[in-house]
Amino acid sequence: MEERMHLPDTVDLDEKRRALVIIDQTKLPGRTEMLYLTEQKDIFEAIYLLKVRGAPAIGVAAAIGVYLAAMEIETDDVKIFTEKFQKAKEYLASSRPTAVNLFWALNRMERVVLEHPEESVLQLKERLHREALEIRKEDIRVCRRLGEYGLTLLHEGDGILTHCNAGQLATTRYGTALAPIHVGREKGMHFHVFTDETRPLLQGARLSAFEMAADGVETTVICDNMASSVMKNGWVQIVFVGCDRVAANGDTANKIGTSGVAILAKHYGIPFYVVAPTSTIDMNISSGQEIPIEQRRPEEVTEMWYQQRMAPEGINVYNPAFDVTDHDLITGFVTEYGIVYPPFDEGFIRLFEEKNAKGI
Amino acid sequence: MEERMHLPDTVDLDEKRRALVIIDQTKLPGRTEMLYLTEQKDIFEAIYLLKVRGAPAIGVAAAIGVYLAAMEIETDDVKIFTEKFQKAKEYLASSRPTAVNLFWALNRMERVVLEHPEESVLQLKERLHREALEIRKEDIRVCRRLGEYGLTLLHEGDGILTHCNAGQLATTRYGTALAPIHVGREKGMHFHVFTDETRPLLQGARLSAFEMAADGVETTVICDNMASSVMKNGWVQIVFVGCDRVAANGDTANKIGTSGVAILAKHYGIPFYVVAPTSTIDMNISSGQEIPIEQRRPEEVTEMWYQQRMAPEGINVYNPAFDVTDHDLITGFVTEYGIVYPPFDEGFIRLFEEKNAKGI
Repeated sequence: MEERMHLPDTVDLDEKRRALVIIDQTKLPGRTEMLYLTEQKDIFEAIYLLKVRGAPAIGVAAAIGVYLAAMEIETDDVKIFTEKFQKAKEYLASSRPTAVNLFWALNRMERVVLEHPEESVLQLKERLHREALEIRKEDIRVCRRLGEYGLTLLHEGDGILTHCNAGQLATTRYGTALAPIHVGREKGMHFHVFTDETRPLLQGARLSAFEMAADGVETTVICDNMASSVMKNGWVQIVFVGCDRVAANGDTANKIGTSGVAILAKHYGIPFYVVAPTSTIDMNISSGQEIPIEQRRPEEVTEMWYQQRMAPEGINVYNPAFDVTDHDLITGFVTEYGIVYPPFDEGFIRLFEEKNAKGI
Repeated sequence: MEERMHLPDTVDLDEKRRALVIIDQTKLPGRTEMLYLTEQKDIFEAIYLLKVRGAPAIGVAAAIGVYLAAMEIETDDVKIFTEKFQKAKEYLASSRPTAVNLFWALNRMERVVLEHPEESVLQLKERLHREALEIRKEDIRVCRRLGEYGLTLLHEGDGILTHCNAGQLATTRYGTALAPIHVGREKGMHFHVFTDETRPLLQGARLSAFEMAADGVETTVICDNMASSVMKNGWVQIVFVGCDRVAANGDTANKIGTSGVAILAKHYGIPFYVVAPTSTIDMNISSGQEIPIEQRRPEEVTEMWYQQRMAPEGINVYNPAFDVTDHDLITGFVTEYGIVYPPFDEGFIRLFEEKNAKGI
C-alpha cells in the first residue's frame, strides 16, 4: 500500500460557502464523503450522530460552527447579538454532554465576545472568525509537534501497535497517537501498523486501519485478543496509544483495553508510549483512582450495531485460531487424575505413570 | 440467576428412535432446540455445519453416528458388512478434516469390527453399540473428574474468568474448563463467571454465557479487551481455560487470546489454570514452538458473520468505555513539548514549567 491517498482535513471552514466541512465518519471505511454544513441543526446533528468525533476534532467543529451561527445573526445591537450568540453556543454545547473539548472551544469563543463589549458586531464577528481559525491551527500545530517528537522514537520499517483511533480522524490533521506515523510518512519512511479492532465500537478496525491504509502504511487489523500473539511473533517494536486523561502520577485513562495492551507490552519488553497533548494531563488529580469511568449500554456488546463491513476492503488481517501460552504463565493443569504443578515436564511424566498404573 | 435450567446432554443416543440426539448449537443462545438425526447425511451435516462442535462432543457424535450407520446395513455377510461400515466411517470422517477426536472415535469404532472377524454381523452390531455408549460414558467420566479436581481450587462466591467455550456444550456433559463450576453448582455452590466474548467467533458470549446462565451462575459477558479492567477491580479470583494441545513442557495451545489472559492474570497475581484431559497432553512434542497454528479467513474479522443476538437475553454485561493504565506500565509520554520519562510526576512539573516559560 505504498500509494498515499492524502485525506482532506477532518474539520475545515469553507470561507466561500460559509460552511463547516467534515469527513462523514459514519460512512467510513466504505466511503470518503465530505459534508458541507451551513445550518445549525445540521452541525448539531453531525456532532450528535458522531459524523465528526474525537475530542480535538469536535472542539474545532464547534468553534467553526458557532462562528457560522454568529454570522447569521442580523443585528447591529451588541446586546442582542450577544444573547443570540449565547443561545447558539448553548445549542451546540448540548450535542455531546460529556465532550470536554466541546465546552472548552465554545467557552473560548464566548470569551471573545464577552471580553470586548466595547466593539461593534462587525468587529466581534471578525474576532470570532480569527479565533475559530486559531483554534483549528493550534490543533494542527500541537498534533504536528506530537508527531515530530514521537517520530524520534521510530525507525524505518518498525512494527507499531495501536489501540482505538487517536488518529487524524480524531483531530484536524495528523492525530495524536498516529501523528508520528503520518509525519514519518511525509518524510518517506515505512512502517507496519497493527490496529487492535477495539471492541465494542471497532474504532481500530474502521478508522485507524482506514487512515493508515490511506496514508500508504502497511496495515494489519487484529482482534483485541490477538495482540499477545502479534507481540510474541516479534512483529511489534513499539506501542503508541492516545489518552483521555492523565493523572499527575502518569496513570492514564484511555479506551477500554489500553491497560491490557500495556501489560502485554511490558511482558514482551516492548516500549509503550502514551501520546498526550498537554491539555489531557490533569495535574489536579494525583492518581488514576480519581478518574471516573463511563459505563456504556450493554447492547453495544450483545447486539450487532454495525451491519456493514468493519474494516477497509483489501486490508491485511491476522486471524490465527489459537495461540500458545508459555508454561511459566500457567499456575497448574487440572487433569482427570489430579492437578499438576510446575515443573510440568516432571509432573506430566508422573501423571502418565500413575494413569498407566491405575489403568483408568 | 439462581434458577437452574438443567440443559440436556449435548450428545446422546435415542435407543427407541435409533437417533443421534444433539442440541443444535447454531440456534444458541436464541433457542434450545434438540435435533433427532437418523440419516447419515444429516449427521454429516450436523458436524460440518457446527450444529455439534467441541472436540469431545464431535467424537461422541461420530461414534454414535457410525453405530447408527452400521445398524442400517442389512447383510449377514461379515465381509460385506465391514466394507459398508468402512464406507460409512470414511464419509463421517470427511465432515471436519482437522478434528482429531473425530478420527480417534471413528478409528476406535472401526477397531471393534476389525479385531473380531470371527463374530457374526449381529454380534459386531452389539459390540459397536457398547463401544459407542462407552466412548460417551468415558467422556462424561473424564469431565466429571476434571470438575471434581478443579472444584478443589474454588471457594464459595469466587469470581472466575474464562475464555472461549470449553464447557458442557463442547463435551457430552460438564465440559472441561467449566466442569468445576457445573460440579460446584450441583453441590449448591455459587460463583460469578466472567466470559470473554472471544472474537472473532464469539463462543464466550454465545455459548459459555448461555450454559453458565442456564446453570444458575451469575454471569457477566465482557469484550476480550475488558479482562484487564475486571481483574484490576478484584472481581476475579481464578482463571480456568481449556486447551487444544499441551506440549511436554506445559506450553499450551488454546483459543487465540488465551496467552494474553495468562499474562494479565500473572500481572494481577491471579492463578491461571488450564483444565486438560490427559488426551490433550502431547508428550511427543517438547515445546509450544512445535505446535502448528491454524490461520483462518480474514472475513471472520472484517465482516459481520452473525446478525442475531450475540449473548443470551438479560445477561449481565460490563461495558466500560475506558480503563486506567498504571504509570509503571508506561515507558514515556510523547507531548508537544517533548517526551517525558519516569518519574512522571517530576517530569510533568518540569514540562509545564517549560510550557509556561515558552508561552506556546
